[in-house]
Amino acid sequence: MIVVMRTGATAKEIGQVITSITEQGFKPHMSRGEERTVIGVIGSDRKVDPGRFEVLAGVEKVIPILKPFKLASREFHPEDTIVNVGSVAIGGRESIVMAGPCAVENRDQLVESAEAVRKGGARILRGGAYKPRTSPYAFQGLGKKGLELLKEAREITGMPIVTECLATSDLPAVAEYADLVQIGARNMQNFNLLEEVGKISKPVLLKRGLMSTLEELLMSAEYILSKGNMNVILCERGIRTFEKFTRNTLDISAVGVLKRLTHLPVIVDPSHACGERYLVASLARAAIAAGADGLIIEVHPHPEKALCDGPQAMLPPDFWKMMDECRAIAKAIGREVAEAPAASGEKSTGR
Amino acid sequence: MIVVMRTGATAKEIGQVITSITEQGFKPHMSRGEERTVIGVIGSDRKVDPGRFEVLAGVEKVIPILKPFKLASREFHPEDTIVNVGSVAIGGRESIVMAGPCAVENRDQLVESAEAVRKGGARILRGGAYKPRTSPYAFQGLGKKGLELLKEAREITGMPIVTECLATSDLPAVAEYADLVQIGARNMQNFNLLEEVGKISKPVLLKRGLMSTLEELLMSAEYILSKGNMNVILCERGIRTFEKFTRNTLDISAVGVLKRLTHLPVIVDPSHACGERYLVASLARAAIAAGADGLIIEVHPHPEKALCDGPQAMLPPDFWKMMDECRAIAKAIGREVAEAPAASGEKSTGR
Amino acid sequence: MIVVMRTGATAKEIGQVITSITEQGFKPHMSRGEERTVIGVIGSDRKVDPGRFEVLAGVEKVIPILKPFKLASREFHPEDTIVNVGSVAIGGRESIVMAGPCAVENRDQLVESAEAVRKGGARILRGGAYKPRTSPYAFQGLGKKGLELLKEAREITGMPIVTECLATSDLPAVAEYADLVQIGARNMQNFNLLEEVGKISKPVLLKRGLMSTLEELLMSAEYILSKGNMNVILCERGIRTFEKFTRNTLDISAVGVLKRLTHLPVIVDPSHACGERYLVASLARAAIAAGADGLIIEVHPHPEKALCDGPQAMLPPDFWKMMDECRAIAKAIGREVAEAPAASGEKSTGR
Amino acid sequence: MIVVMRTGATAKEIGQVITSITEQGFKPHMSRGEERTVIGVIGSDRKVDPGRFEVLAGVEKVIPILKPFKLASREFHPEDTIVNVGSVAIGGRESIVMAGPCAVENRDQLVESAEAVRKGGARILRGGAYKPRTSPYAFQGLGKKGLELLKEAREITGMPIVTECLATSDLPAVAEYADLVQIGARNMQNFNLLEEVGKISKPVLLKRGLMSTLEELLMSAEYILSKGNMNVILCERGIRTFEKFTRNTLDISAVGVLKRLTHLPVIVDPSHACGERYLVASLARAAIAAGADGLIIEVHPHPEKALCDGPQAMLPPDFWKMMDECRAIAKAIGREVAEAPAASGEKSTGR
Repeated sequence: MIVVMRTGATAKEIGQVITSITEQGFKPHMSRGEERTVIGVIGSDRKVDPGRFEVLAGVEKVIPILKPFKLASREFHPEDTIVNVGSVAIGGRESIVMAGPCAVENRDQLVESAEAVRKGGARILRGGAYKPRTSPYAFQGLGKKGLELLKEAREITGMPIVTECLATSDLPAVAEYADLVQIGARNMQNFNLLEEVGKISKPVLLKRGLMSTLEELLMSAEYILSKGNMNVILCERGIRTFEKFTRNTLDISAVGVLKRLTHLPVIVDPSHACGERYLVASLARAAIAAGADGLIIEVHPHPEKALCDGPQAMLPPDFWKMMDECRAIAKAIGREVAEAPAASGEKSTGR
Repeated sequence: MIVVMRTGATAKEIGQVITSITEQGFKPHMSRGEERTVIGVIGSDRKVDPGRFEVLAGVEKVIPILKPFKLASREFHPEDTIVNVGSVAIGGRESIVMAGPCAVENRDQLVESAEAVRKGGARILRGGAYKPRTSPYAFQGLGKKGLELLKEAREITGMPIVTECLATSDLPAVAEYADLVQIGARNMQNFNLLEEVGKISKPVLLKRGLMSTLEELLMSAEYILSKGNMNVILCERGIRTFEKFTRNTLDISAVGVLKRLTHLPVIVDPSHACGERYLVASLARAAIAAGADGLIIEVHPHPEKALCDGPQAMLPPDFWKMMDECRAIAKAIGREVAEAPAASGEKSTGR
Repeated sequence: MIVVMRTGATAKEIGQVITSITEQGFKPHMSRGEERTVIGVIGSDRKVDPGRFEVLAGVEKVIPILKPFKLASREFHPEDTIVNVGSVAIGGRESIVMAGPCAVENRDQLVESAEAVRKGGARILRGGAYKPRTSPYAFQGLGKKGLELLKEAREITGMPIVTECLATSDLPAVAEYADLVQIGARNMQNFNLLEEVGKISKPVLLKRGLMSTLEELLMSAEYILSKGNMNVILCERGIRTFEKFTRNTLDISAVGVLKRLTHLPVIVDPSHACGERYLVASLARAAIAAGADGLIIEVHPHPEKALCDGPQAMLPPDFWKMMDECRAIAKAIGREVAEAPAASGEKSTGR
Repeated sequence: MIVVMRTGATAKEIGQVITSITEQGFKPHMSRGEERTVIGVIGSDRKVDPGRFEVLAGVEKVIPILKPFKLASREFHPEDTIVNVGSVAIGGRESIVMAGPCAVENRDQLVESAEAVRKGGARILRGGAYKPRTSPYAFQGLGKKGLELLKEAREITGMPIVTECLATSDLPAVAEYADLVQIGARNMQNFNLLEEVGKISKPVLLKRGLMSTLEELLMSAEYILSKGNMNVILCERGIRTFEKFTRNTLDISAVGVLKRLTHLPVIVDPSHACGERYLVASLARAAIAAGADGLIIEVHPHPEKALCDGPQAMLPPDFWKMMDECRAIAKAIGREVAEAPAASGEKSTGR
């Protein structure tokens, strides 16, 4: 249930609502908009009596939220949420492309990748320092050293960075270095980690589990929101099905379903969804056309040498071509994908 | 394995290759192009010796086809196949939209639907006369009467018609009336029916089963092709997964995968994939952006009265808006979706 | 809705109920038990008024059936249905094992297989004359010749035979030769074929589709029952999932769920479920323990020469061992699996 | 690759093998049996040359392990591993039943549940102190207090306890109190947590993820084993499919597949697999018949009051009946399920 305050409700009136919520054994969740304040009544499914709030001074209306996700729901927050990652705003008119290598391998590989994706119009640099690997014997990422290389790449390119956090013990370091902290598909229901990223001040990119329903994804977002971090971006990255030609099956419907159910930005990861370089551009175009607020794409200048997921990494020229297509599609539906930066003049010569 | 003949190979040389194929216990499959003739060597997986053909006069080269689908494969026929449905060509630069009601219910409903979708730019009219229903107690379609109404709608609107055939006993009638014979998802592995539509002269729209792999879809196409009907259009229509917000999960990757593996046209059915009106436009845009050769969409002027699948039928105004978006997206990727017909001037006033 | 008549209700009273059902636009379905008659009121989901029947003479009570399957439901027919296949009763205390080769290949193979499975305690002989194959180039079965060989094997061994019907055009022949007509997984929603087997007098073995929910399986059974053939046996044979070590995933829960929802016998096909010889015995034991009314198992004396599905065919000695285990498990839960026939004394010497 | 030493190989010979492994950049993994020592050569997939080891003194043979899981594989350790949980041995002739409530709620509920399951023949008490919940607003378990109640229940009943650990920060406490530390389905690929339980001395119960292949389950076990904790029990608990009558689909084939691939004990959780009380007994019987080394079952004396998963909790009398059936089935296949303890004489009067 949410309590919507009148425009101009006083601090005292708001305080009385909060007191009433607390006295009834629920937790208040404040959301101050420019015009009015909305207060969530959070708690178990136990019945709340709206009449207890409607009679209070300054209350305009009381709205029940029947869905199990509350703070994440459109009912609670009808407008699209804009999440700021460094200087980049996600969830608005511009569809944001995040790109870079699967794993940070070394300085040259990272900087070369970063320059390549920036030339294509990517706005955020991705790169894994901590890698979740099915096998304990596989390359597990450079760890702290990888975070430092990402920081260096940010300084060189000016792009904010997104990188995954696998464990609560790594969170302080990741949250310090990253502009956007990624929670990977395998950790989507690692509730302890969700609670911890709910307490940090950096925005969170929450990827859908390989076999998680969209409702479960929203409930995992709710874990983060309910701890106070309202800057969550959702990411569809393919689910597990019986089909064998692709590694996973991109659930493109997720874009439309989520945009209807939640105010949080929704992006798509076509690289992990298909696992095959040749398919990425087709899926990326589809995601933009479906209305995604962004993409996250793996690009590697030398995928044959990649320590991780080489077969799905795009080559820079293919990425540039894909970005041109995505720009045209975004325009066709009244949105936008950033042009390559003209500043350094690299685009005209370098491509 | 396929035997590619030299440009200008004589009938005698071709005859010798055919004789050799037959003598080794295989079946020849002729494919005469403008420039050269290609002969498929069809049979079991038993090893064929390419040397037996390479030595024959007029043979340019011999290409093994390792995939289990032969005639359907790109190796066998590298160029895109164009399938002509009445006057409409599918598989070329233009993405073709087929639209209309789920089921033919009566003359008024069908004609009203047909006019509505034509105004939006649809090129082919869909409508079910024989309906596959999970329950024996549900509306099963008008049968023969429905075919006659479809014929009448074609005469009024000039649009070719696509309708489903459920049983071999109905095939003669369906093949007589329809311009494109649909084999539905539940019959994708009804091998007897596949063989029978392989013998007719009308093109076939083959829908993917709800839990069929893309390889199985291609093998089912192979059943039709191997009986001599080379005019097959494939249709992705959603697969079954654990996700509950949508009826099925549209496998958007199918477009890119199939276009790579086969020369046959590939279209997408977003209506059955999601089962929810509000999602159809998002999926339709995604399909065009992914590179689909067409769409098949359910539109009903009064979905609240529909005898079948009302919740997924688009209203005409939403369909028109979606078509405008699809036109813009098609242009963005160098393709085309037809404009609404200007002739009757209805568009400017009627919409 | 079903109308339960009082014990001793007269023909006239029954006739009045039927008249009332018909007048209200529904179809009556008679089910005469030893003690009382039950009449199903079959039709659309349109609301039926129970009061209209309760006032009629001879009516004991009126029971609504809320499930979409009516004749197949336990509410309609609370006792277990016993289906007689030749002299073998399925659905009672004895769990019935059907076994034999995947495909009928030749007389020697079939008779050798039949003798082998009979020695193990199998009561019904399986063997495919018409084979549904993913590839049009694969062995499609011996057809009519296969039916004749099955008939011969029945004469030699005394075992009733079960074999699959793929097409309505083959149904007259299959129904003539077979004691139990199988509808395979790929045809579970071939509604035309379901209606046709609903009209024959032979019992039907209906296999669950790879992609079908249990509700859909019951709705397909309803198609057969609603045409008048009440002798339907259901078969769980594995569903498609993401797991790769097995060909399909045996849904062992189906046994308990179906026995609760329906009065029809439920058997399990572990061979197709796993596709691997080494796993069949483990799954067969599980099925008996779960409460299945029978099994259908592939056994081949020389699987390395099998024309179809060799890797999943058990060798006779492994089958005999499995049958001993199943007998012990059946006893442990108060049921029974037949001993090998002692008559000819073959068991003691032949094994 | 593993190096099998000759019977009676000296410490010096073993030392030379270890030195050679280390010098080549691999990690040795020692496994000392009663008769001989086996040394695993663990590392990346980089090629190892067996000749480098075969020439060393004391080496009997060198066996390559092609599967991605090494220490978990049957090739590495052909005999069944017995895992000791308190005084209870899992993986031997006896199938062990673990039972108790979903969540520890209070002292009375826990002790009453414990006594009830002990009377049925359960050997280990289950109960959740930390509960993974989809919703942040749902009951999350009693935490540390729950662990203390479990300890008390162990003292009263003498049964070892199994309870779940959700987070590395809780691991020291859980490992101190529990006899068997459970890693739940949602954490099966929480690699950080796997590594941490790999370093403790208590045995680990690793549940298969809802979305995980059996190969991934074995790779997750490998994470634990590779950190030195060789006492891992695997648990099949249902996977996610399209079927809706059950919460998940119990993959009963997992028992046979895992017993073939690995030496680790394999148990089954029918309660979470189906989510419905009425189905649990059927699945439990199937699991024992399939060859499972044990079961883990939810039992609650007052499920209508349960704070978590009430609908799937068995009532004590149903559990006792199920245990009798499981005992009979275990005997039928040459195994054993424990009798209820006779000592206190409670069984005869209490039931």
